[in-house]
Amino acid sequence: MKLYELVGSDHTQGFSPFVWRIKLALAHKNLDYELIPLQFTEIKDALTFADSKTVPVLEDGNNVTKDSWDIACYLEETYADRPSLFGGNVGRAGSKLLNSQIIMPLLAPLFRTLVADIHDILDDADKDYFRSTREPRIGCTFEEARENYKVSLAIFKKNLWSYNKYLLTEEYFSGEAPAYNDYILYSMFLWARGTSNIKLLDDDDPLNKWLVRMDQSFGDLVAHLKR
Amino acid sequence: MKLYELVGSDHTQGFSPFVWRIKLALAHKNLDYELIPLQFTEIKDALTFADSKTVPVLEDGNNVTKDSWDIACYLEETYADRPSLFGGNVGRAGSKLLNSQIIMPLLAPLFRTLVADIHDILDDADKDYFRSTREPRIGCTFEEARENYKVSLAIFKKNLWSYNKYLLTEEYFSGEAPAYNDYILYSMFLWARGTSNIKLLDDDDPLNKWLVRMDQSFGDLVAHLKR
Repeated sequence: MKLYELVGSDHTQGFSPFVWRIKLALAHKNLDYELIPLQFTEIKDALTFADSKTVPVLEDGNNVTKDSWDIACYLEETYADRPSLFGGNVGRAGSKLLNSQIIMPLLAPLFRTLVADIHDILDDADKDYFRSTREPRIGCTFEEARENYKVSLAIFKKNLWSYNKYLLTEEYFSGEAPAYNDYILYSMFLWARGTSNIKLLDDDDPLNKWLVRMDQSFGDLVAHLKR
Repeated sequence: MKLYELVGSDHTQGFSPFVWRIKLALAHKNLDYELIPLQFTEIKDALTFADSKTVPVLEDGNNVTKDSWDIACYLEETYADRPSLFGGNVGRAGSKLLNSQIIMPLLAPLFRTLVADIHDILDDADKDYFRSTREPRIGCTFEEARENYKVSLAIFKKNLWSYNKYLLTEEYFSGEAPAYNDYILYSMFLWARGTSNIKLLDDDDPLNKWLVRMDQSFGDLVAHLKR
């Protein structure tokens, strides 16, 4: 199995939150794979075979799947005898909903929080591409985004309220053990750890304790990332 | 089984969104029950036996349960041989998360949108109580809330984005058939229908088609409500 991922100047450190979801899903199902690192400007040509302009792409023998959600569903169906990512159809629906729910309230403000730091870890060849495509998207320069990162961070943190509330009584976002709901959320924090030193949580946030539990479950995979 | 619910001057029309969740859950499990209507100012005394200051309360023989989430879990465990509300532990976790997720982005702005209309359907005895407890909570008078309802409604509608997006590819929030995720969301719209004439959705919102499907599934229960 080959998993195509996104890297910066350090080709051993993938940082895409969507690739993280699949790395965690593959670990959940105890499946081995080879990582194929790509820079932003390499993606288009390298993934023509998959008809994809984004990572992750998973190549499993003759089966090529793009988009993290479709890959997760592919793994769940193809490796149904291994631990389940969704725990059935209702759980799958809940994960799919969570997939949408975090885009505007969490991923968007977190992207604005991290974007200048992400730029800094890219290879020089990628920096121009990243700036010219992302600055119009966020409506300001990276320098302005860095200067105002606390505004974006405050929105992100405010929108974590329901997740912190949930964790007051529950261990994992998938119930008694981690599964795909947890990976959707954990991948956001791994994205941040791999790209930035900005502290995302308050010390007493229940999410902190959940992150410790997640780190313990995925020690080898995430050990290289600073917390 | 007795379900204690909240009514206005018309004692046959319960409108609490949290009671709606349980009515839908009881219908899902095909369980019969008697409705006990209570006005706001009757709740405190009437529910002392349940140590509850809010509806719903469910009395099932000697078992008394308060809080909609706990009642849903009680029904799921006690009537485990009937159709499942959660579809397993991961689905249950997803529903519990959704329970929290809609409070700030959806229930709060929807309450502000509806609050003046809710006031108007209350019995006179309840109107003073409702005003004196809710106006401090929303930080303005009901008259001001009515005047500015479009601001609150716009927030509510903006925060429906992920739910509309989800429904572009899925039939129900619980997957292929309605279950508790759907009831959490449907109950918001039933609350609005039972209290107000304000139109919540745009005509082309995927949520409209989902509401039609939900109405078809629960025809008898919701037929008296205008759409």
